[in-house]
Amino acid sequence: MRRVKLTLGYDGTNYAGWQRQENALAVQQVVEQSLRKLTGEAILVTGASRTDAGVHALGQVCHFDMRTNIPDAKLPLALNAKLPPDIRAYMAETVGEAFHARFDAKAKIYRYHIHQGVHAPVLERNARRHVPAPLDMERMSAEASAMVGTHDFRAFCAAGSSAKTTVRTVYECGCERDGAHIQIRIMGDHFLYNMVRILAGTLVEVGTGKLAQGAVARALSGGNRLDLGQTAPPQGLVLEKVIY
Amino acid sequence: MRRVKLTLGYDGTNYAGWQRQENALAVQQVVEQSLRKLTGEAILVTGASRTDAGVHALGQVCHFDMRTNIPDAKLPLALNAKLPPDIRAYMAETVGEAFHARFDAKAKIYRYHIHQGVHAPVLERNARRHVPAPLDMERMSAEASAMVGTHDFRAFCAAGSSAKTTVRTVYECGCERDGAHIQIRIMGDHFLYNMVRILAGTLVEVGTGKLAQGAVARALSGGNRLDLGQTAPPQGLVLEKVIY
Repeated sequence: MRRVKLTLGYDGTNYAGWQRQENALAVQQVVEQSLRKLTGEAILVTGASRTDAGVHALGQVCHFDMRTNIPDAKLPLALNAKLPPDIRAYMAETVGEAFHARFDAKAKIYRYHIHQGVHAPVLERNARRHVPAPLDMERMSAEASAMVGTHDFRAFCAAGSSAKTTVRTVYECGCERDGAHIQIRIMGDHFLYNMVRILAGTLVEVGTGKLAQGAVARALSGGNRLDLGQTAPPQGLVLEKVIY
Repeated sequence: MRRVKLTLGYDGTNYAGWQRQENALAVQQVVEQSLRKLTGEAILVTGASRTDAGVHALGQVCHFDMRTNIPDAKLPLALNAKLPPDIRAYMAETVGEAFHARFDAKAKIYRYHIHQGVHAPVLERNARRHVPAPLDMERMSAEASAMVGTHDFRAFCAAGSSAKTTVRTVYECGCERDGAHIQIRIMGDHFLYNMVRILAGTLVEVGTGKLAQGAVARALSGGNRLDLGQTAPPQGLVLEKVIY
């Protein structure tokens, strides 16, 4: 029996998120089914991040235990032959038996993708949020930089979260523009439920002028969800990397 | 009655190409149905390019005649409210009654998108061809530049083409790489059926070393389809622009 750390990517469009569910298909379930097809074993996988329905990943990490003897270097290609084309395994590493994909994660990087233009994008319509109004990048960048540091992010937390503490550390947060394509990049230790989507929604509203500048600072000091913008839709969000 | 020139984009994944068909859904048909929903008129549209099943467009142009009085500036948004999200109207212009989207086109620009890496891309899986083998960009670029000029391109023509002449002019042809993403860009007057996909397949085979360098020059002088590579799959191809 060995423990495997697997890095994978997926297009979240057709899934009810990462986590296994009763009446909808989740990425976790499809990975488990594909591992069973490959090995004949009933394997349970544990993911680093429980991405929401419609959210994508280019660097999700999960761990699982297997008996079948497939070398690490061959496992991704073997598994990809069983996985559907909207889920790909990129890298497998045999790790110590105590390794845990979620608890051992030191930081995560997310990107939120926006298409700013009059008309919605056709080819990227499931991977970017469409914003028709012009966006002020200077304002958005100033607001993003206010996220950096160790703060109580309770205002950035969706109702119903079960987090024990809402204090988190954001290491980096910034925005960049390449033509119609705007990206928000954030790196932090552990994110609260919907934290990145609430940030993305807030930056867009500050960028269009609907919200006054300083919203992030106000929300961090007052802890009031109402100081922030609407939660941005899931399809712009990508889990880019999990750092151990 | 006025003639309208409409610029549109589409994700070709779910369509049997541009041209109306008996037993499959084509982009042309969906545009016509949406124009009917918008205006109540039975409108026939004529496209500049009959893109194949699975081929995308960011700058397809079509023309049609309409009686309904919707200003040019409002027509794209009004039509987009009727179109499915994988087809978008970008710009409408009232033109002279003799304007013809296909016959008046002076040049077209196509791009062919490749993902070069061990594993297939997840988010762009319907918009890039996956090539696992390394590609030599210098060889590919040298081969691409051999396309430029006025030549008899009969070797680049799929069997069953009804073209009267196979002499065409290519104005520009080149390749560029940005990480795992490789693009082939070509601008020419009128393309033969499958010409760009045969070129893309040839450049990939020259890039991997499967075909010797000079394949394009040999095919242009000898006219032999067998000197070229396999026709590349449709999902990498995008009709970028039609020039009048």
